[in-house]
Amino acid sequence: MPVPDTRARALGFAPGLFAAGPLNAITDVAGVRVGQVTVMEGEATRTGVTAILPHPGNPFAERVPAGLFAMNGYGKMAGVTQLQELGELETPILLTNTLAVGRAVEALVDWTLAQPGNESVRSVNAVAGETNDGRLNDIRARGVTHKHMLQALAAATDGPVAEGSVGAGTGTMAFGWKGGIGTSSRRLPPALGGWLVGALVQANYGGALVMDGLPVGRLLKKYYLAEHAAEQADADGSVMVVVATDAPLSDRNLQRLARRAMGGIARTGAAFSDGSGDYALAFATHPAVRRAAGQGATEDWPNDRMSPLFVAAAEATEEAVLNALCCATTVESRLGGRRVVGRALPLDQVAALRRA
Amino acid sequence: MPVPDTRARALGFAPGLFAAGPLNAITDVAGVRVGQVTVMEGEATRTGVTAILPHPGNPFAERVPAGLFAMNGYGKMAGVTQLQELGELETPILLTNTLAVGRAVEALVDWTLAQPGNESVRSVNAVAGETNDGRLNDIRARGVTHKHMLQALAAATDGPVAEGSVGAGTGTMAFGWKGGIGTSSRRLPPALGGWLVGALVQANYGGALVMDGLPVGRLLKKYYLAEHAAEQADADGSVMVVVATDAPLSDRNLQRLARRAMGGIARTGAAFSDGSGDYALAFATHPAVRRAAGQGATEDWPNDRMSPLFVAAAEATEEAVLNALCCATTVESRLGGRRVVGRALPLDQVAALRRA
Amino acid sequence: MPVPDTRARALGFAPGLFAAGPLNAITDVAGVRVGQVTVMEGEATRTGVTAILPHPGNPFAERVPAGLFAMNGYGKMAGVTQLQELGELETPILLTNTLAVGRAVEALVDWTLAQPGNESVRSVNAVAGETNDGRLNDIRARGVTHKHMLQALAAATDGPVAEGSVGAGTGTMAFGWKGGIGTSSRRLPPALGGWLVGALVQANYGGALVMDGLPVGRLLKKYYLAEHAAEQADADGSVMVVVATDAPLSDRNLQRLARRAMGGIARTGAAFSDGSGDYALAFATHPAVRRAAGQGATEDWPNDRMSPLFVAAAEATEEAVLNALCCATTVESRLGGRRVVGRALPLDQVAALRRA
Amino acid sequence: MPVPDTRARALGFAPGLFAAGPLNAITDVAGVRVGQVTVMEGEATRTGVTAILPHPGNPFAERVPAGLFAMNGYGKMAGVTQLQELGELETPILLTNTLAVGRAVEALVDWTLAQPGNESVRSVNAVAGETNDGRLNDIRARGVTHKHMLQALAAATDGPVAEGSVGAGTGTMAFGWKGGIGTSSRRLPPALGGWLVGALVQANYGGALVMDGLPVGRLLKKYYLAEHAAEQADADGSVMVVVATDAPLSDRNLQRLARRAMGGIARTGAAFSDGSGDYALAFATHPAVRRAAGQGATEDWPNDRMSPLFVAAAEATEEAVLNALCCATTVESRLGGRRVVGRALPLDQVAALRRA
Repeated sequence: MPVPDTRARALGFAPGLFAAGPLNAITDVAGVRVGQVTVMEGEATRTGVTAILPHPGNPFAERVPAGLFAMNGYGKMAGVTQLQELGELETPILLTNTLAVGRAVEALVDWTLAQPGNESVRSVNAVAGETNDGRLNDIRARGVTHKHMLQALAAATDGPVAEGSVGAGTGTMAFGWKGGIGTSSRRLPPALGGWLVGALVQANYGGALVMDGLPVGRLLKKYYLAEHAAEQADADGSVMVVVATDAPLSDRNLQRLARRAMGGIARTGAAFSDGSGDYALAFATHPAVRRAAGQGATEDWPNDRMSPLFVAAAEATEEAVLNALCCATTVESRLGGRRVVGRALPLDQVAALRRA
Repeated sequence: MPVPDTRARALGFAPGLFAAGPLNAITDVAGVRVGQVTVMEGEATRTGVTAILPHPGNPFAERVPAGLFAMNGYGKMAGVTQLQELGELETPILLTNTLAVGRAVEALVDWTLAQPGNESVRSVNAVAGETNDGRLNDIRARGVTHKHMLQALAAATDGPVAEGSVGAGTGTMAFGWKGGIGTSSRRLPPALGGWLVGALVQANYGGALVMDGLPVGRLLKKYYLAEHAAEQADADGSVMVVVATDAPLSDRNLQRLARRAMGGIARTGAAFSDGSGDYALAFATHPAVRRAAGQGATEDWPNDRMSPLFVAAAEATEEAVLNALCCATTVESRLGGRRVVGRALPLDQVAALRRA
Repeated sequence: MPVPDTRARALGFAPGLFAAGPLNAITDVAGVRVGQVTVMEGEATRTGVTAILPHPGNPFAERVPAGLFAMNGYGKMAGVTQLQELGELETPILLTNTLAVGRAVEALVDWTLAQPGNESVRSVNAVAGETNDGRLNDIRARGVTHKHMLQALAAATDGPVAEGSVGAGTGTMAFGWKGGIGTSSRRLPPALGGWLVGALVQANYGGALVMDGLPVGRLLKKYYLAEHAAEQADADGSVMVVVATDAPLSDRNLQRLARRAMGGIARTGAAFSDGSGDYALAFATHPAVRRAAGQGATEDWPNDRMSPLFVAAAEATEEAVLNALCCATTVESRLGGRRVVGRALPLDQVAALRRA
Repeated sequence: MPVPDTRARALGFAPGLFAAGPLNAITDVAGVRVGQVTVMEGEATRTGVTAILPHPGNPFAERVPAGLFAMNGYGKMAGVTQLQELGELETPILLTNTLAVGRAVEALVDWTLAQPGNESVRSVNAVAGETNDGRLNDIRARGVTHKHMLQALAAATDGPVAEGSVGAGTGTMAFGWKGGIGTSSRRLPPALGGWLVGALVQANYGGALVMDGLPVGRLLKKYYLAEHAAEQADADGSVMVVVATDAPLSDRNLQRLARRAMGGIARTGAAFSDGSGDYALAFATHPAVRRAAGQGATEDWPNDRMSPLFVAAAEATEEAVLNALCCATTVESRLGGRRVVGRALPLDQVAALRRA
């Protein structure tokens, strides 16, 4: 699937202070790979899977430190307590729909048991996240299967990442428009460490869309709680954010980094509603912080040098959401005998507002 | 499966101050039901499922407040963040083995979608816990299936609860002996509210066994880190505790109650080792704290009356572990071409120590 | 001290969807009172105290449920663990400077012991927050005293709240300009419950100021990490947010409400830097959720009706920050033999940007 | 004050598997110092201060990683959120009574500002804990002063630690008998790392005392909720545990270590009642994990080697409590016109029970 040429930056939205990495994607962090499977079948299955692998090796044998933050924990994320207790990730991350987390866990266990070197592994902490694409997808039909999960893992690659109505973003909605998968990155100046921070989002949440300060939701009269708007947006849904960095961070500082990703989500106008599962998971790929059996980290980026990384994480997350919305294409479905349409953000109108 | 007549109380172990309920089981809490499936197949599958249902109704439509505590979060428990965010349980609880959590989630989703009245449900927070029975069970063979999960749910009943080497305790070990499922309860005196508190444990952890103060592990020379012991016990493994009460508790006070269950575990001599997933989940069945759509609680047991409930939860948990050990029968298996035996606690020796 | 007529709304900044309450202040929540003492002495003492009282009664005897969230816990807030454990507030809240928290606690203890009816009280959980006004205030000189704390408590009143360079905001800076105390409120429409949500902030943090979407920091070239800016802003500092509501919320839902306040802070362009202590504390004044000895709540606003309250909390917090900045007046000081100036936000320039 | 020769080991109580360090005290961890001030004045002031310093240097300039766990957060501990956010301790720890935390914070700030090298420090996160000695001490009279706090800090020394009715334990009660300060340590065998783990407790809590498995409380008929006991023990109160180790631990693993200390407390028969503030704070002194400005750790003890340290922390904590009780001497007071006596544990009766 080609990467759309309608990313937010092309429309003039480049939130924040820092420069983007070469791909402006989570895959700018060396070694990180993304694989996606889009499942559009029949008139009602509009869903999929997005896999993120932290490095090309065996993630179970060579674990990466990781931290998690739930701004609102209305979600079914799997693998949470062990990730928090040990401060590490030992499987790839799968994103999918709400009712498919069980099979995502099952697939990650199968995949991990099958990796060379894991022949005697008997314990696997599978990490899977989700958002609810039931506004466009017949989610009760359980269209995403175990096979799709493994396909997404197998498809993982570096390079550009497909955005919009793909993978785990196939059926998602955001701010009343079609949501989806988006990604972005930031590179810190050398004086601040030179590190890369990348973000990938599965955007399926609501509120009143703000694009780099421009109140698009209000201007287009489509937003949560807009009583007099022509069309009312739903604030529920969720957002999963995955943040990767090549800085040598501890799990504690990764947990802090994850919290900042939610600052980026806030800036897009999120309502953080009751029914929204708003999670950010951050991991670090630096070799000096990886963990093998009986071996701990030998580096640790100090607290008092974290602030630029915090800013970068928020910026990359904010732009990843804008990319998800700008790249998403209209998706139609038929649910309960009724035609439903997830309309793409009207880029021409947005561009006009931007110029106004 | 008949309830063994070798419970701890018969051997003279009745920890704590409060009286037990009529069954001395979690099912003393009115409405709570337990269903178990034991899976012993071939020479190496020694595993199973234990289901706990909070009340006879639809748990999704009529949610119970719930709280969780992880003394050590090395575990794969599913459904954690939503349970914490909303403070409620919306499915039954399934306990099983470490690698079967994915299919437990899948089964709970299926079961929930199929309940009458849930025809339009599109979001299910399945709560499943596990311990690792890989010392007796060929866990990589994935012997527990989706079907077993549904069978355990269907088998749930009130009345006495089978203990020992059954259900999710079929292949577990504890303190170097055969572990398993155990349960116990306490009833508060009327002046303290008269409430019932029940506990059910899946005991698969280690340390140096203490039975109501008697240092059985040390006396029988089988304990974690015993360098000169004839047989060394493994401290890893895990314990899942489920606590039920009919008191009208808030989710916050249930979280506090769950923490106290770990006090009971500590008293049994737990090492709380790095690799042990030690969780307690508490829920309250009182009608005035149940939650339906758009409806909150109308009662709340005050903080300053909680202490007796805390004591009761620790006591019931401690005795539930003793019951698991006392009722567990020897289980043999063949793993990696080698015969392995999980020996039952030698009750005669224990009784002799008790009298000494 | 008169309330300045330069509030954000007068300049055209009214973030969000909901209407403000009559005073557009935390004191719109019936019973909430605010008292402030400004301490400007000599050439270097520029500090103060702001007290918030939840209701006119004895807060120890009649406790209000409360929840706390630390977006970044680099701060000295007192009273945290008991507030979280019991989910309640038993003293007024004092805001002051970083090095004065000890005496704030001391004063709250004295004040509480002295309340009629508290003659046998022997345990007091004093809640005090702070930000570091050391950029304008000789903080090591400890200019705020125990007496000032008691004066602020005694001065507490309903009605309009002084904003800007007053009370605990006397010496604070925000986004490179003079910060201070700000407040705002929102009233939900009757269909959403009709509740009031008020916020009060002590703004002393940095980043790149955004005023209701307008990137004022970038436009005026004063922001954190702006390498080529004429004047560089410091991202550190902190923000304390106090949120009050008259809705009958549980402590858990108040904790969730507090988290949303940080969404409002994010929208102002906060960097959430390493050294920033960014806290929100929310409490509910509704009589049905107050707690006396041996008595719990009898009402509980359900989870699935919380979303509008969440939106309101974020909006009120965002506008409270804008009010702090718009109302703050220039403060001069002399620190280490050097004249330092905290300049007021140039309202004319901001107004011009707003019109552009 | 001489160290009593009535420590638990002399009476035959040596809980656990590991050997004690040479002093069987927290000061076995090289560099750790303890200073205490006992305040017994008039007929009713029975209180004091205990100071723990992590190393002989400037703790602000050379911070130690630290972790905290509140088994029950009904307490006034200061400095919590920053300790958790940064995972470090930047001041000594002061233990005192409940109403003196404010002045403890004030004293720690003063002490820190006055340390050589801290001339430009403007932010201090003072860490102070407490238990409520109001059963023997006229706590409302505020007998502990700022001066006592500084004296305790100045008195800190290595070597043996005074135990029992001294320092912050002067007026505390435990399990219905006189409580106090106690300490103990464990040294791991070389094969497990050879590290030292020391604990110091301020014991002021209740339940049903168990001494290394011996149910002393029940046997002597003095325990919480004993309806027919001659004298009823109060379960409230609190316990502060400070754990020190020379192992190179991360703050996350120190937080885990702190949790295990509560396992030791559970084994002493703690009720963990509603009104008990039960905290453990752990820190590591190893040079490779200390932190100066701009500098992080260069070592990290791996998760999978933590278990023996966990066991050691629980054991040292358990024995520290026994030492507090065994060393405490009877303290009399006069409160509200009534003579009150905190009787020492009857060591002869305990010894007789031990032999029985």
